[in-house]
Parts: sequence; structure tokens; C-alpha cells
Amino acid sequence: MESGGGGGCGGAKRWGFRPNAAAASAATWSVRGTLNKIRAAVPAGDARVAIPLGNGDPSLFASFRTPAAAEDAVVAAVRSAQFNCYAPAVGIPSARSAIAEYLSRDLPYKLSSDDIFVTGGCTQAVDAVFSILARPGVNILLPMPGFPLYEARSVFSGIDVRYFDLIPEKGWEIDLEAVEALADENTAAMVIINPNNPCGNVFTYQHLAKVAETASKLGIMVIADEVYDHLVFGSNPFVPMGVFGETVPVVTLGSISKRWVVPGWRLGWVAICDPKGILRETKVVDSIASYLNISTDPATFIQGAIPHILENTKEDFFNKIIALLRETADICYNAIKEIECITCPHKPEGSMFVMVKLNISCLEHIHDDVDFCKKLAEEESVIILPGSALGMKNWLRITFAIDPSSLVDGLGRLKSFCRRNAKLRN
Amino acid sequence: MESGGGGGCGGAKRWGFRPNAAAASAATWSVRGTLNKIRAAVPAGDARVAIPLGNGDPSLFASFRTPAAAEDAVVAAVRSAQFNCYAPAVGIPSARSAIAEYLSRDLPYKLSSDDIFVTGGCTQAVDAVFSILARPGVNILLPMPGFPLYEARSVFSGIDVRYFDLIPEKGWEIDLEAVEALADENTAAMVIINPNNPCGNVFTYQHLAKVAETASKLGIMVIADEVYDHLVFGSNPFVPMGVFGETVPVVTLGSISKRWVVPGWRLGWVAICDPKGILRETKVVDSIASYLNISTDPATFIQGAIPHILENTKEDFFNKIIALLRETADICYNAIKEIECITCPHKPEGSMFVMVKLNISCLEHIHDDVDFCKKLAEEESVIILPGSALGMKNWLRITFAIDPSSLVDGLGRLKSFCRRNAKLRN
Ligand SMILES: Cc1ncc(COP(=O)(O)O)c(C=O)c1O
Ligand SMILES: Cc1ncc(COP(=O)(O)O)c(C=O)c1O
Repeated sequence: MESGGGGGCGGAKRWGFRPNAAAASAATWSVRGTLNKIRAAVPAGDARVAIPLGNGDPSLFASFRTPAAAEDAVVAAVRSAQFNCYAPAVGIPSARSAIAEYLSRDLPYKLSSDDIFVTGGCTQAVDAVFSILARPGVNILLPMPGFPLYEARSVFSGIDVRYFDLIPEKGWEIDLEAVEALADENTAAMVIINPNNPCGNVFTYQHLAKVAETASKLGIMVIADEVYDHLVFGSNPFVPMGVFGETVPVVTLGSISKRWVVPGWRLGWVAICDPKGILRETKVVDSIASYLNISTDPATFIQGAIPHILENTKEDFFNKIIALLRETADICYNAIKEIECITCPHKPEGSMFVMVKLNISCLEHIHDDVDFCKKLAEEESVIILPGSALGMKNWLRITFAIDPSSLVDGLGRLKSFCRRNAKLRN
Repeated sequence: MESGGGGGCGGAKRWGFRPNAAAASAATWSVRGTLNKIRAAVPAGDARVAIPLGNGDPSLFASFRTPAAAEDAVVAAVRSAQFNCYAPAVGIPSARSAIAEYLSRDLPYKLSSDDIFVTGGCTQAVDAVFSILARPGVNILLPMPGFPLYEARSVFSGIDVRYFDLIPEKGWEIDLEAVEALADENTAAMVIINPNNPCGNVFTYQHLAKVAETASKLGIMVIADEVYDHLVFGSNPFVPMGVFGETVPVVTLGSISKRWVVPGWRLGWVAICDPKGILRETKVVDSIASYLNISTDPATFIQGAIPHILENTKEDFFNKIIALLRETADICYNAIKEIECITCPHKPEGSMFVMVKLNISCLEHIHDDVDFCKKLAEEESVIILPGSALGMKNWLRITFAIDPSSLVDGLGRLKSFCRRNAKLRN
């Protein structure tokens, strides 16, 4: 007792510190946390390599290696010794202007350096935006299914979460009627993720235009998570939400993690896509800058490398990655069609993921999606994220962004697992 | 009005988002923010280079260049392509164990990998610890003068700050009687910075032992900011607070920013120096892990390089830096003795800074320390941090950690400035 929270002199608490309940409940919304538990079920004795269909990080596969130009840029920045210093809180000027230029290519107006805040990946971009939106009573509209970091940051900052559905029958489009019904005078923002994690769909221009009109009508900003920007391989092109910045203020969050396959480099951004200057006038932009002033930064030399990375990466590399994702998405979609007890409502056309529905009643001795994923890890050394981690019980999120041969192997194991555990064997 | 926070339909607010007051007031506690304002006063027309005596970042001076071994380690990690992936939230295992080993060299017990959380510099270490200590009504004891990031994070997280003095007449030792008087049942922790920023003193073993006893008696943890670890050049050796981990739980915060002169690399740590396991039992350790789970990480390849950086840096490099700091501290201390209107109560013996008192009554047309620093920047292109930024009105914090010749130049300009602006010319 002496050393615990309890004991001590006169029955009073011995120590003045306590665990943090908000951090604990926020962390339950963690893809990393859930996958760690699933991975723990992989038996040490399995001679086969584990197949990671859990998270969106194919960087360890040779076929997904980032281009030499990107590595060269980082190495040159380190060797120059010009970027060992602290950076300004908002990012170094050359990085800000390179990112502004990069994003402006796809917009009907030009972003300036001042519209860009350089962050430690899209993760820190979410941190900054959610931390400053927090205020007593505020609420935010999140997609279901979505990306758990948004729930985690909402919980930690005391922001009330309200969910709108993505509708599988409509290719995972946003239920905009639900959005209208959910919003009230305390709603600050809605989040969209496009190309979509976890569903693998890509919103059309027309749908995004409706999102913008709805948000404008409701007086809320759109937080557009475009961390999978340009990773599209179906019929819908990638349209940045910022295209509708004249209709509604858009805060775009992005990074080089996915398109350049370097999530470990931790370089992202917040881009203020708001040509009418509403976010500046309402001092939301100042708040973001203030928050970053008291926060850590991405490594200065990676910032120094960014202009070269953005400018010198050849189309060849992007084309290769898109072709690879198209191939693996096809492999995945076609394989799933042949697997009993799981169905895919919509063929993936972007990002690195697909959502599939588990028909739990057709499986023996498997209680739910978490149980499914644990047993799959245990019996087949295949890691898949249970839908529960995203609030979607009895769904699964499968990553197809891995080497094709490993994917075929992993899906084969998934198939045997399902066959072995199905109630009615065929 | 239409586009501002005001106008819109029926007098109701048009937009549901607002500026964040906590972020705004937190950002006023920012060394970066204050220095930006001072720097802005440097005239474009001055042919002389500006002399940066403002912040602790000598990395751009050739004499302070990080060793080739450190650069090589980062380059090798990038080239390996083994560290492009996401890292675990707590850090990669090799980095955690290398840091545990590094810190254990100076402790009477061994830290394990599990005691180490790898962070984006000491800045993110402060973020993590302060974010999880926050709870309604909690307070924390901070040194005056101190490092404004602590105030900023307290303000942002709603932690109440209580100040204890560092006493200039006692070589900037902590006023431990004040600490006892300030603490109550809602006090979670006290912060010590050693070697000290901004005062340049180094606490003795005996004084740290008393700190430990006081904190233990009060039932509070000691947060030991040792970002300047080993940067000592006076008679007191550097003693890590963790040495007293048996007496009181210590959370040590550190980084490679200062000792390796690479603040732009953003690699730091939280080390749980608590052999009795009190912080684990009270789940404070879990809370830190949970918070890091929803936060950004230091770049994976810098983590990958850390074992090599910590192991392969030669004593020669450390000795050179210490000799340089000893030399520049001497230059600074001796020059200040010869400057009218400023006095230095204690010769610096560690870190990169010294606090000097401004005798404002002996200066003409200068209202206070901020005015002093602005005019100094304007007239002499020398950047110094006004003490007000640290809550010490009419003091100055001077960095001596720059190239000796630039330092001599800067102090010469400071001297002419003071002479020119002194009331009684001699
Ligand atoms: C939708 C979404 N947003 C944000 C992130 C975080 O990305 P980053 O690596 O840039 O921090 C991820 C990572 O998987 C993601 O899927
Ligand atoms: C006392 C103190 N703590 C923490 C920091 C932050 O250091 P880092 O570069 O490791 O984030 C600094 C930086 O100047 C400092 O002086």
C-alpha cells in the first residue's frame, strides 16, 4: 500500500498524481492498440511469415519502396548540416511554399505559404485541429465507419462526437440527410476522409459539392482528411475538397506517408483551403498556429527535403504504385467473392483498404469480429483489423496494400480459415 | 460581416467554430513567439550579421557541428529502407533499449526498455506528461525563472501553476521552503531543470537529495528536465535526478537536441526513474503510453539511428563542446562585468544560458527589458531574450552557446548599446 495510490499518513493519499481517464479511453480508439492485441495471438511456432493485412503501411515490401529521389533528398538535407536547427513552429518557409504549390496544382485558386502548417504527419494535423476546436459543449460530426484517431482525439479533448453513416449500398457515400439532422449550433465541423479509409471508395465531384453545400448551410467547416490523396485506381478521379473552398471553409489534412510510402518519416500538413478567409477572420488559423507553437515539429531536415521530394518524384513511381494497388485491390476483391461467410459490398477504388461484412451466423464457435481476427491470427498468422475497432461490429477492414504474392498467400489462408470454421461445409 | 464570425441569418452566428482562447494564452508563453518579435526589430539595412544570443541552438555554427558518426547513422538508417515504416507508439525496441542503457550509466540501478518512451524531442515529452497530469483542480510547482513551455502546456491543459523561486544569491538553488509552503493535496508534481535553463547553474548532489526528500514528503513526483544533461563546465558535476528514484518517483525528460547539437532532429524521451514502481502502480505510466498512442512520433529512421548515435559518439566530441561552452561562458561572464547597467549574479557553469539583471534606472529612454531587447535588436542587430518572457521583468537571458568570435562581436555591440543609452556617461 505504501507505494500504491492508497496508503500513507493518516489514511490520506500518499501521492498527488493519478492515472488519466481520458487518455485511457482515448487509447481504446487506437488502430495500433487493437492490432497489437491481434498480433499477440500469432503463435511463435508458426514457420510461415505473418501476413499483415491490418494497417496501411506497405513500406517494408520492396515493391513499395519509396523512390530513390526521396531518399536522396533526405540524405542531402542531413549531409548539408543546414537543417540541424530548430524550425519555426509553422514549418520552414521552403517546405510551406513547396506544399502550397503541390496542393494548388489541383485547386481552382492558389494556396500561399501562409495557408500551410507543416506537421508531424497527418496525425499531428488531427491533433492540432481537434485540440483547438475543443470548447465546452462543442460537437463534431464523424463518419461511421471512420478512422479511430478522430474518436480518440475527440474523447481526449472533450469534444462530443455525433456519427453520420457511410452507406454501403450507395458505394459508401455520406448520408447527408443524417448530417443535417445531427448538426446544431454547437457543431463546429464535419470530417470526411477521401479517398476513404476504411471503405476504399472515392467520392465523386458531385457528392463533394453536396457535402460543401450542406456544411455551408449548417455553418460548419469541412475537415478533409486526404492522407490517401491521388491513390485512386477506379473510375472516380481524386477531387480535393479544397475545390469547394469558395462554398465552405475547408481544412485539408495530408501527409507524404501514403503516396510516398514513408509513414515513418512523419511529415504532413494542415492546409487552409478557404479563399474567402473565413478561418482567418474567425481566428481559427491563429489558434492552429498558437497550438503548434507549443508542440513538437517534424524533423527540420525532412522539411528541408520536402521541396525536392514533391518536385523530383517521377510520374513513373506514382504510376507503378497505382498499378500495384489496382492489381492488389482486384486480387483482394476477387478472392473475397470466393470466401464463404464474408461479403464485400463495394469494390475498392482508392486508398489501401476494403470493408467486408462478416456473416457470423455461418461460422462455428466464433463469437464476433474480434474473436474471428484473434483466431485467424492464431491459426493462420494473418492479421486483419476487426470492424469493432472502427465501431463496426462484425465487419472486417482488410488492407490489400502489400506485395501481391503475400496478399495471395494471406487471402488463401483466410479462405482456409473460413472454410474450416464454417458451419455448413461444402 | 457575412464571412466573419458575426453576421448570417437572423443574427445567429454564421459559423459554428471559434478561436481557442487557451491556445492563444498558452502561446504567449513561447520563447519562439517572443524571439520572433525581437527579431522583427532587426533592420533590413544593417550590413552586419545579426548575432543570435536568444535561443539555445548553436547548430548552424561550424564549431558546434554534430559529429560525423551521428550524421552517418541517420544516413545509413534512411538508406537501409528498414525504417520507412510506422513505429510503435512508445518507440522502436532498439531505440528504447539504447536510451535505457545510456541513462543507466549514471544511475545506481538499471532502467529497462519499458521505462523509456521515445518522443519528438523533450518538447513532446513535456506535452505527454503535462497532458496526462491534467485533471480538475490539479496544480503543479514550477521554477521561477523557468522554461515557458511548462507554463504554456499548463495553461493549455488547465493545470494550475504555482511558482517557487530559484535564489540568485544562493547560486540559483531552489527555495525548498517555498516548495513546502506551496504544495497541497492537489499538487501532482514539481519541475526541476538541471543543468538549468535559464540560469546556467548546476544543482549539487546534496541539493538534489533535499529536493527528493521534500517531494517525497509532499507526495509529489519530480519531473526532471535534463535536456542539458552533461553540459557542465564548472565545479559541480551533472547528477541525474533519477539517482534519487528510490526516495521519490522521478520522470526524467531529455533529448539529443543539446548534447549532440541537433535540435532539428526531434528525438527525445520520457524515462521513468522509479525503481519502486510507484508510477507503474498508480498507472501514470499507462497514461503516458495511452497518450502517445494517439500522438505523432519521432521519425522512425532517427529512432533507428539512435543506438549508433548514443554508442558511437566519441568522447572527443563531447570534450570539444564542453571546452567551447566553458570558453564562451567565460567570455560572456567577463564581458558582462564590464558592461554598465547589467549585472550577473552567478557565473554560468552549465547549459547554454545565463541570467543577468538589468538596472533599468541607469538607462535613458528604455522602459523595461522588452524595450531594451527591441532597441538592442534595432540598433545593434543582437537578439537577446527579455526576462519577461520567463516572468522575470527587467532581467535578460543571454545564450553564450555560439561561435566565440560571434559572441565577442555580439557582447561588444551590447556594450556599446548600454554605454550609448546609459544615463551617466563615463
Ligand atoms: C484516414 C487517416 N488519417 C490519418 C492517418 C495518419 O497518417 P500519418 O501517417 O500522416 O500521420 C492515417 C494513417 O493510417 C489514416 O488512415
Ligand atoms: C529546459 C528545456 N526543456 C525542453 C526543451 C525542448 O527541447 P527539445 O529540443 O528536446 O524539444 C528546451 C529547449 O530549448 C529547454 O531549454
